[in-house]
Amino acid sequence: MIRIGIIGYGYWGPNLVRNFAVTKNCKIDFICDFNITRLQVINKLYPEIEATNDINKILLNPNIDAVIIATPVFTHYNIAKTALQNNKHVLIEKPMTSDVASSIELIKIAKTKNLTLMIDHTFLYTDSVNKIKHFINAGELGDLNYFDSTRINLGLFQPDVNVLWDLAPHDISILLYLNNEFPISVNATGISHTGNDIENIAYLTINYQSNFIAHINCSWTSPTKVRSTLIGGNKKMVIYNDLEPSEKIRIYDTSYQFKNTEDKNKILVDYRIGDIHLPKITNSEALLGVANDFIESINHNKVPISNSEIGLSVVKILEAAQKSIKSKGKEIKL
Amino acid sequence: MIRIGIIGYGYWGPNLVRNFAVTKNCKIDFICDFNITRLQVINKLYPEIEATNDINKILLNPNIDAVIIATPVFTHYNIAKTALQNNKHVLIEKPMTSDVASSIELIKIAKTKNLTLMIDHTFLYTDSVNKIKHFINAGELGDLNYFDSTRINLGLFQPDVNVLWDLAPHDISILLYLNNEFPISVNATGISHTGNDIENIAYLTINYQSNFIAHINCSWTSPTKVRSTLIGGNKKMVIYNDLEPSEKIRIYDTSYQFKNTEDKNKILVDYRIGDIHLPKITNSEALLGVANDFIESINHNKVPISNSEIGLSVVKILEAAQKSIKSKGKEIKL
Amino acid sequence: MIRIGIIGYGYWGPNLVRNFAVTKNCKIDFICDFNITRLQVINKLYPEIEATNDINKILLNPNIDAVIIATPVFTHYNIAKTALQNNKHVLIEKPMTSDVASSIELIKIAKTKNLTLMIDHTFLYTDSVNKIKHFINAGELGDLNYFDSTRINLGLFQPDVNVLWDLAPHDISILLYLNNEFPISVNATGISHTGNDIENIAYLTINYQSNFIAHINCSWTSPTKVRSTLIGGNKKMVIYNDLEPSEKIRIYDTSYQFKNTEDKNKILVDYRIGDIHLPKITNSEALLGVANDFIESINHNKVPISNSEIGLSVVKILEAAQKSIKSKGKEIKL
Amino acid sequence: MIRIGIIGYGYWGPNLVRNFAVTKNCKIDFICDFNITRLQVINKLYPEIEATNDINKILLNPNIDAVIIATPVFTHYNIAKTALQNNKHVLIEKPMTSDVASSIELIKIAKTKNLTLMIDHTFLYTDSVNKIKHFINAGELGDLNYFDSTRINLGLFQPDVNVLWDLAPHDISILLYLNNEFPISVNATGISHTGNDIENIAYLTINYQSNFIAHINCSWTSPTKVRSTLIGGNKKMVIYNDLEPSEKIRIYDTSYQFKNTEDKNKILVDYRIGDIHLPKITNSEALLGVANDFIESINHNKVPISNSEIGLSVVKILEAAQKSIKSKGKEIKL
Repeated sequence: MIRIGIIGYGYWGPNLVRNFAVTKNCKIDFICDFNITRLQVINKLYPEIEATNDINKILLNPNIDAVIIATPVFTHYNIAKTALQNNKHVLIEKPMTSDVASSIELIKIAKTKNLTLMIDHTFLYTDSVNKIKHFINAGELGDLNYFDSTRINLGLFQPDVNVLWDLAPHDISILLYLNNEFPISVNATGISHTGNDIENIAYLTINYQSNFIAHINCSWTSPTKVRSTLIGGNKKMVIYNDLEPSEKIRIYDTSYQFKNTEDKNKILVDYRIGDIHLPKITNSEALLGVANDFIESINHNKVPISNSEIGLSVVKILEAAQKSIKSKGKEIKL
Repeated sequence: MIRIGIIGYGYWGPNLVRNFAVTKNCKIDFICDFNITRLQVINKLYPEIEATNDINKILLNPNIDAVIIATPVFTHYNIAKTALQNNKHVLIEKPMTSDVASSIELIKIAKTKNLTLMIDHTFLYTDSVNKIKHFINAGELGDLNYFDSTRINLGLFQPDVNVLWDLAPHDISILLYLNNEFPISVNATGISHTGNDIENIAYLTINYQSNFIAHINCSWTSPTKVRSTLIGGNKKMVIYNDLEPSEKIRIYDTSYQFKNTEDKNKILVDYRIGDIHLPKITNSEALLGVANDFIESINHNKVPISNSEIGLSVVKILEAAQKSIKSKGKEIKL
Repeated sequence: MIRIGIIGYGYWGPNLVRNFAVTKNCKIDFICDFNITRLQVINKLYPEIEATNDINKILLNPNIDAVIIATPVFTHYNIAKTALQNNKHVLIEKPMTSDVASSIELIKIAKTKNLTLMIDHTFLYTDSVNKIKHFINAGELGDLNYFDSTRINLGLFQPDVNVLWDLAPHDISILLYLNNEFPISVNATGISHTGNDIENIAYLTINYQSNFIAHINCSWTSPTKVRSTLIGGNKKMVIYNDLEPSEKIRIYDTSYQFKNTEDKNKILVDYRIGDIHLPKITNSEALLGVANDFIESINHNKVPISNSEIGLSVVKILEAAQKSIKSKGKEIKL
Repeated sequence: MIRIGIIGYGYWGPNLVRNFAVTKNCKIDFICDFNITRLQVINKLYPEIEATNDINKILLNPNIDAVIIATPVFTHYNIAKTALQNNKHVLIEKPMTSDVASSIELIKIAKTKNLTLMIDHTFLYTDSVNKIKHFINAGELGDLNYFDSTRINLGLFQPDVNVLWDLAPHDISILLYLNNEFPISVNATGISHTGNDIENIAYLTINYQSNFIAHINCSWTSPTKVRSTLIGGNKKMVIYNDLEPSEKIRIYDTSYQFKNTEDKNKILVDYRIGDIHLPKITNSEALLGVANDFIESINHNKVPISNSEIGLSVVKILEAAQKSIKSKGKEIKL
């Protein structure tokens, strides 16, 4: 039985509690938050869990095996470090930390102490993303050519991180999960309409050694919500629309093929447009998959799907993207 | 009565002929093309027009007042120059020419000779774009914050120009038409999947002195066709979906406002989400508007809507974009 | 403080409990259900409410002021009658009872005893339906011409009532709420694919003295879910799509007008197609409105919006529809 | 070489001419219309065809082999009869005639004289309808349970026929083509908002001996255009949306199965919701298929797909539907 302490009961915390509460082989002992009203809510909903504003009741508690961190990004590193140093397995809300160096340090500590360090990239546990991964791995899409994601809506402006740090971790983690190749560089542009230098619109291109390219368009200032990703292979292409209640994935039996031609000024392209296939998607809650993977990874000493390497890669790309934006879109090597 | 010669009867030429044939105060005397089959088609459809493969029958003909050029981009400059030098008014298919220098030269000749030089940026004559312009000019959107356009489909790979030169002229001309501010620089990234260094996917950011930003996403390799533009003001926002048969424009009474706050770590944002308004769009053929504007501009010595300055600006942005792609996304000043 | 007993904790009961639990001026004392597992759930979720399988603890309890009935339709009459006879206000899940006679009897008892008798036609408390009612009452639609509703999905086959009794109460109650005219007759057709004579597909036409007509298409056997209603006036028309997350109502500034013509063989029609307006819809929970209306109607001795007369009218139409189906579609007077 | 005379050059006539002009083994000699402007249009577009207002130049011309009738419905019978009596093959615009008796008479004459008599039910030649027929015939849908069609828009009010005669022939011919069983009766309701007793909204139920039911909802007074048909089998279901530019057909791998149960009050249903498949639809012009079938049927003395028996069945159902509407929805046997 893994004894758990959850730190942070703001936007995402309640979802974590709700899911870990029904996960096998674990028990939530403490939830820590600094907001008194939230503590009262916890007491009412979960009288058997101790609600506290004293973070050390969790971090220094020898009975606690695992700590789940759902606090603002800039606090992740310190809390996670203390937890690991006190021999606790750690699950951190995405993104892992606010810079590459701190993420690397956490990984080092976890490795040394043989502790599970996992990042909550929830989308890696959705049926949609796993169906796409299945089709890619089965070779149905052929060689991947591009990944183009749009994640825009009228969103909550964050005071500490820009729109890429807020929204793009979803797309980047999915991209890293689906395509094994690691990118070589990024370019990013963006704008802040608040005058505080924190971009509310940003465009990110991720470059690869191979013929593959990725692009992510993020905005907090769109009048309509879009969650759409195009993934093109040289055999088939996929559109993943996460806002569709059930028809989230469309597989297009569409492709084009270049033919050799002696005339250098001509391109001969064979287009093929075929059927479209909408596989059934199960709407089970992805966060329950996160919870199960975390507990099982601890119990079986296995590497979780959303592991710290993916978490680090996401931070690497975000950090480089931010550097690119601040360097007027210059290419930043990874 | 303006006597017209049309050069090029490929993809767009027939549309030009069809529309100029019903435009007042003009008459098509010649159509020139090098393809014999096309000349036969012209003879059958328009027995009263002379179909020829001799371009000089138009360019050197003293009875011809105006020349319309619908040939491949790289030929625009030479044909237009000869036409202007022979005192003909000129309408050129978009984009104007394949580089800034040649566009500037054409403008200079036209100015000296007081000839109309117009570029066929057809979208400036659609009811959709003009409705949006009307709302912007009336102050309904407030100050403009962003323009974000997606123009992707399974498109014909061009052998001589990349996807930006092929598709982005539409978005750039609309952008220049709607927003009077001239941009200061661009960043662009892209990829060629054909191995010929001609990008079939490209992402373009256009930067401004003010708080405004524009982004254009173009691809010939999408399984689905998208023609969608978001335009955000600080009062209202617009989504323009050109694929909708009648509901092309949605005006969102949606905005956000930043409030002053003493705490630097906080952003106070007031969100307002209101009604959506879909103005009726008239589906009249835009190219007929182009034809009328060309003939009237000649007859009344007025500046056409889609004038050579807009044409030049489009080429400036495209040329800079191409330079940026080839410089790994570096900012290129305009 | 109105003391409440809720009878039935199956599909809808939990929603009633959740909403009445946060409604002012009332308190749920008892929930009755025959299923032990459900009683245990109640004990866990609501330790302060007594969960019981003894219905008389509610019906015969002198401390209970109001009874809410969420049991199968065929039990409504008996439970409601006993409740009213024991001087309790009553809220019944739709449809009111399974035949007209019993509904009339309940109304009579409630009237005699001056008790509130209300039916839970939840849709009358949605912002969507009330926005439409507002536009109709303001004369924006002009004279109403038709109401055409489709309510189909892959639904749970009911063992005791056909698809009309299951799904059409929503449409009929909305229709009666929006249009004050009472219909004169119905025609209905349908089919049972189960061999038990209980229709899983049915089509209902509702006829009026005036120029108005209503039609409702219900099915449990559609591969896709549709919740769509067209309402046509002679000035404007409305499409109400309840599946849209936020854009539930579209008001079309579209109409046609007939002109007098001497030639009897000709119809002169003026068509007008104008803008479309999507008013903002608030997604507040309608059932909370039901709860508030019930409690306030008791406390202020007022007639609730979803009153027993509407409930009776719905049953009248359903009973006539069933008679029509069994009489091969014959018109049945109301 | 079949020599053709086309009678009627109103709404549909030009489409017939355009398609027969490019059909092999036939030649249009005459087009007849009473409108002088239309005759001038014909002269301009087709100088090689004789445009006439003298119908007898076609009907009594011994050189004419086949007559195509695209005039108002009430004139079909007389023209077709004269044509057949003068030994001409006949293609009639849908619906065949305005009553059953006259349709039967035409069939009898055609049979006696061994002439091809064909009705232009164009939808039977679309790739969409044939794809559905293919899936049905291959047993993919299993046993058919229902057909539910909605064909509504802001339509041209016809002065002589109601909305069912105008729009429903499409749905009825598709229904008869897809399902071999002949219906036993119909019920129909409707309303006329013009005061001329010609219904502009109508609802038609078509009843079968078996467990199958069909329903068609037609209106000239909808603010939006809908062309949607649901076809349910006990294995799979189809939605056919003719307004989709390319994704016209969706095949749902969805079904339900009833299980035997001892408890008469219970229904045990197994629901299965699976993938959705969108077969590629070719957008070739269906009317060209009509033209080819007509000419080949004449030349090879074969029965065309859209033959006179289907034409007659459509008229039978329409006539019965009209009788039902005028008898207040009473069932009318076929």
